[in-house]
Amino acid sequence: MQWLRSVFQDELDSVTSTLVELSNLVSDAIEKATHALLTANLEEAESVIAADDRVDTVQHDLDSRIIDIIARQQPVASDLRALITALRMSADLERMGDMAHHVAKITRLRHPQGAVPSELLLTIEEMGKVAKLIADKAGAVISSRDIEKAVELEKDDDEMDKLHRKLFTTLLDDSWSHGTETAIDITLIGRYYERFADHAVSVARRVYFLVTGKFSSEN
Amino acid sequence: MQWLRSVFQDELDSVTSTLVELSNLVSDAIEKATHALLTANLEEAESVIAADDRVDTVQHDLDSRIIDIIARQQPVASDLRALITALRMSADLERMGDMAHHVAKITRLRHPQGAVPSELLLTIEEMGKVAKLIADKAGAVISSRDIEKAVELEKDDDEMDKLHRKLFTTLLDDSWSHGTETAIDITLIGRYYERFADHAVSVARRVYFLVTGKFSSEN
Repeated sequence: MQWLRSVFQDELDSVTSTLVELSNLVSDAIEKATHALLTANLEEAESVIAADDRVDTVQHDLDSRIIDIIARQQPVASDLRALITALRMSADLERMGDMAHHVAKITRLRHPQGAVPSELLLTIEEMGKVAKLIADKAGAVISSRDIEKAVELEKDDDEMDKLHRKLFTTLLDDSWSHGTETAIDITLIGRYYERFADHAVSVARRVYFLVTGKFSSEN
Repeated sequence: MQWLRSVFQDELDSVTSTLVELSNLVSDAIEKATHALLTANLEEAESVIAADDRVDTVQHDLDSRIIDIIARQQPVASDLRALITALRMSADLERMGDMAHHVAKITRLRHPQGAVPSELLLTIEEMGKVAKLIADKAGAVISSRDIEKAVELEKDDDEMDKLHRKLFTTLLDDSWSHGTETAIDITLIGRYYERFADHAVSVARRVYFLVTGKFSSEN
């Protein structure tokens, strides 16, 4: 049994490593998607779009592996809960990859024009930085199960919400002169970054709940 | 064992019933949210917002129940796969509830004004109808495991995509005179209906895969 337990532990560790790998992939993706968006770089946007297949494949393989572990090891209680949570985190991370992909698709759609007017470049650059930070922290929370860092993510997400509101304030200002098409693009871009961050927060909350048995939003 | 198997089957059936219940709740929610949006009906919008708590509670209880069944019954192969799929479908349905909630929140935000300009009322009414139809069909696919109906949902979703594009065509027409705020609202509303339908399609695809072992999008 000792040996079995140890094989099982190795399998759980390998699931955790793959989740961290996914968080690295989507952190890279949002960083590149943001850079491509701000510089109207078609080649970089295409590379983000292509790289999303890799995220999907890694997630798909991971999910099969998790289900296989549950079937073979028949874990109960906290081990089963950890595996189910891993399935949910992998779905969150895959969705973060989709959001980076969506940002890249707007860049491609508007190329050779830039999708972002100059007065919004800084705000979106900032949203990209927060998104990358939050993806990196989600990865760190997955591997360390560090509860304090999990709670930090909620604050980073507040920063994202603030930037998101700033985006709308600029759009709604009387001086807005970029027309409806750009307003639509910016509305969608804002939503993608916001959702990206929401999913990272969701990852952190899931880890928090696994470790403490409480919801972090109850703080 | 015969008896055990039968208890297990009852549990699976009860999971299916709850998924159907969830699909009914979100079908109701999107119908009411659409009606509230088109008629600027604050009371109805509030009722959709309040009802989303019920969706969340039903989903939360269902997920606990599914995990408990896995822990106690230790199913393998197709039974385990069905339970994991049920977890994913419950997440899709919960998210559909969120989308209806988001639509209702825009109604509340703009009240007593209507959020939708008159030339878009019909398109959004149509999106609401397709959304409700697709939620109802998703519920029927869950309970019947009818593969043909599951494939139908993909076509209904094409209809939703067509309506979504029509929305943007109107927004981008030179005659658009409703300003940026309304353009933002309509962009988000369009996205909410599109995502609602996407999650319903995802439910249908999951059932398709469970029954056939193939992805329906490979058709």
